[in-house]
Amino acid sequence: MSSVRKFQPDVHGDYRWDQVDRLQYKAEGSAPFKDITRQVLFNQPDQATELRYFEVAPGGHSTLERHQHTHAVLILRGRGTVRIGTDVIDIGERDLVTVDPLTWHQFRAAPDCALGFLCLVSKARDKPQLPTQAEQLELEKRDFAATSSLRSQQA
Amino acid sequence: MSSVRKFQPDVHGDYRWDQVDRLQYKAEGSAPFKDITRQVLFNQPDQATELRYFEVAPGGHSTLERHQHTHAVLILRGRGTVRIGTDVIDIGERDLVTVDPLTWHQFRAAPDCALGFLCLVSKARDKPQLPTQAEQLELEKRDFAATSSLRSQQA
Repeated sequence: MSSVRKFQPDVHGDYRWDQVDRLQYKAEGSAPFKDITRQVLFNQPDQATELRYFEVAPGGHSTLERHQHTHAVLILRGRGTVRIGTDVIDIGERDLVTVDPLTWHQFRAAPDCALGFLCLVSKARDKPQLPTQAEQLELEKRDFAATSSLRSQQA
Repeated sequence: MSSVRKFQPDVHGDYRWDQVDRLQYKAEGSAPFKDITRQVLFNQPDQATELRYFEVAPGGHSTLERHQHTHAVLILRGRGTVRIGTDVIDIGERDLVTVDPLTWHQFRAAPDCALGFLCLVSKARDKPQLPTQAEQLELEKRDFAATSSLRSQQA
């Protein structure tokens, strides 16, 4: 049905819309994540993709994962960082993020600010893969190396 | 390629992004429209839809048209109205608009304010149809009737 669904933030300023349910991000215990919700904004019968809105509370994060399907993301609210592979990049309102196939990625809200983003995905998509402990340690080692290198450049 | 493309408004405050071209809305003379530009934000190889950003200058408008494919629209900037069939509805930032198959629709920016919106469509889609003069007159007659009815209610 053709419609206009109005933007209706809640009393805390969190993003809500008429006739859109706020859902769990994932089933509890299925993968590590923190303080994040999911709303399906568009799931048109004639379109093979769906557009979701994810909202991460201050200090929260999405799951660190990778998959064959790509993500097309537009930041709608606040700021934070995105990990793409071994890079961790600052993101803010209206920035565009593309995540390629089989690329480790994770969205984090800033400690003092929520992060809300639109995410476009194919309806038919593969299941996310989680890192092994070794893969996670490898990513964190590279983060530490990058931070140490930055510190020595600043010293 | 995985990437972060930063939001970079121009000196007038109009919305631009790194590595995104601002394009003509349509070929001049192909259909009636006024003061509107198009930017393709996402066209992922594994996705059957594309996400475009349209920006309408104050007082401008998109083409009045209809087609079999649907539109999924999120207002990103400013305010204005959308015609959906015989309804003309006020729209503002972050409102969601769905346009069903074969439904006449047109977006208009407010006289004093730009209107910018994301529009999700299937890559494979039918060509828009324009109204005949009779169809356009019929829509306008209904607008006039609705406005007259509103005036008599207010009197």
